[in-house]
Amino acid sequence: MHSHDLVDITIIGGGPTGLFARFYAGMRRASSQIVDALPQLGGQLTALYPEKYIFDVAGFTKVLAKDLVRSLAEQSAQFGAREHLNQRVVGLEEGDGHLVLVTETDRFPTRSIVIAAGIGAFSPRRLPQACAAPWYGHGVHDVVTTPEEYRGKRVVIIGGGDSAFDWAHQLQGIAAHVTLMHRSDRFRAHGATVAAVEAAVAAGSADLFTFHELADVRSEGDRLSGVQVRNTKTKETREVACDVVLPMLGYVSDLGDLLNWGLTLEKDEILVNSQMEAGRPGIYAAGDVTTYPGKLKLIAAGFAEAATAVNQAVHWIYPERKVAPGHSSNMEIFGQKDD
Amino acid sequence: MHSHDLVDITIIGGGPTGLFARFYAGMRRASSQIVDALPQLGGQLTALYPEKYIFDVAGFTKVLAKDLVRSLAEQSAQFGAREHLNQRVVGLEEGDGHLVLVTETDRFPTRSIVIAAGIGAFSPRRLPQACAAPWYGHGVHDVVTTPEEYRGKRVVIIGGGDSAFDWAHQLQGIAAHVTLMHRSDRFRAHGATVAAVEAAVAAGSADLFTFHELADVRSEGDRLSGVQVRNTKTKETREVACDVVLPMLGYVSDLGDLLNWGLTLEKDEILVNSQMEAGRPGIYAAGDVTTYPGKLKLIAAGFAEAATAVNQAVHWIYPERKVAPGHSSNMEIFGQKDD
Repeated sequence: MHSHDLVDITIIGGGPTGLFARFYAGMRRASSQIVDALPQLGGQLTALYPEKYIFDVAGFTKVLAKDLVRSLAEQSAQFGAREHLNQRVVGLEEGDGHLVLVTETDRFPTRSIVIAAGIGAFSPRRLPQACAAPWYGHGVHDVVTTPEEYRGKRVVIIGGGDSAFDWAHQLQGIAAHVTLMHRSDRFRAHGATVAAVEAAVAAGSADLFTFHELADVRSEGDRLSGVQVRNTKTKETREVACDVVLPMLGYVSDLGDLLNWGLTLEKDEILVNSQMEAGRPGIYAAGDVTTYPGKLKLIAAGFAEAATAVNQAVHWIYPERKVAPGHSSNMEIFGQKDD
Repeated sequence: MHSHDLVDITIIGGGPTGLFARFYAGMRRASSQIVDALPQLGGQLTALYPEKYIFDVAGFTKVLAKDLVRSLAEQSAQFGAREHLNQRVVGLEEGDGHLVLVTETDRFPTRSIVIAAGIGAFSPRRLPQACAAPWYGHGVHDVVTTPEEYRGKRVVIIGGGDSAFDWAHQLQGIAAHVTLMHRSDRFRAHGATVAAVEAAVAAGSADLFTFHELADVRSEGDRLSGVQVRNTKTKETREVACDVVLPMLGYVSDLGDLLNWGLTLEKDEILVNSQMEAGRPGIYAAGDVTTYPGKLKLIAAGFAEAATAVNQAVHWIYPERKVAPGHSSNMEIFGQKDD
């Protein structure tokens, strides 16, 4: 296993909370690194909704998720901090006066840990039908990153939530045709989006099949060419010619080994106090992975919690350093000055 | 007294925390208004350091204080929310099923209050010497908004903190000459700024008088023309010809009547729990006015606390509405959709 250098703060998760934690570690002249299971920074914002606008980050009337990630990454890279991607955390060990975070391939000695793991290492919920499995990656796609990839294509979307309806709506005018299929007639999507899709159905550019599920996948050679769908009530089947199937079934997540670290847990979340202490010395948590009375799962909350967690960690590692940072406008950000 | 319409949430303070609180009230479709003693929005950022860069707001590698205020004001004005400036809060009364916030001239009926009053209604600390009093506003200025106003002028700065040294440094190349004077030789300013001013002294473009205080103000006609300064140890005096005096002596603040409202106080701060409850039903607090274990006086913390306070207030006023807002990317911000 590759063993890395000892750092002050290891941040688990490279989403917005983890990125701001890394920034704050730099502000406090603490060495830090991000460890994330995903292949890129940004967490949910990059993996799940890079093209969606976010409206509730202070100072941005609206900002694309991917643009916010870019800004945060730039801000947090000012201090030359490190990131280790594609690293799924599998263990935590006690080292000689420090902790050692263990991934499948590497060991990360660290004086403290800030868990900013969001909803954990997450992945889209897969279609339960075995017939779909071989088509994942070429014909069946559960994350839409570039709508233009579907220009002129006949698209079948499976699901009844926001993502299913959002994409059925957003692919209008891009896809040749959109068929949205859901197992019931109860939608977990916003009314206006449902209405927009129903308008597209009325205009003939979309179909909406309620009480339907995937029955089989049709192919021509090695190319997906359509699906057989089944009415869950009448059991009747019909064929739908298509080029691509987009299952939008939500996500499953897994905090994995973190659940075994003796932290204060409440269901699958880490119960923190107002110092973001996670129940084990030197371990702090911030962002969507945490819970406390009044906790809101907002990016703005994650930012503040990240600042709190890092400042507490700095004081814990170096008791002579105060918890409170100075005003940033009085700091020589790129100078030698420490607090 | 002018009495206003009843609103859901009245926000005391129009600084960054208050502005984000107003934004969140709009997000939750709650009616709101800002009441502030200052003549403009932005709180400390506008009044005290509009031209300073802020480095620790998430998503902005650096941003001028005044630009951040402009962005926040734009973001929070999307919902057409109201602001009442030059309104100093002097009382709180119980109305008929609601509260009434009272200022010197107006009455503001409100279902809830979010106190985002920062350090309170603040003002620069004045020079103790009576000789200076008549010159405030024409020759003696304690807030620098536009450095260009001092181009070509001979400037005397009084103080030994960050503001005194920052302006002594920043006015290099603008002012004809800068004299910095302080009562002791102990500076409460960052080392690099002190070093920069000392370099200017060595280069002859500045003077630094330690153990000196103002003794008298000299004038020609109705124009300030210089100051007499006194060495606090030797009591010797000397004359310094100048066009302008900038006392940079810090600020005095006053939470005023808020201290009488039966809130949970700790010194001059409001002790809140993690729901930002301030100790009296319907009253919440956020930002620098609050304290709790681990509290950091950061803009980023104020934003999160504002979101928490407003969401709690909405749930308190309308128990059928959940505390947690949805994801902003799924909201029809400008549509009819509510949570």
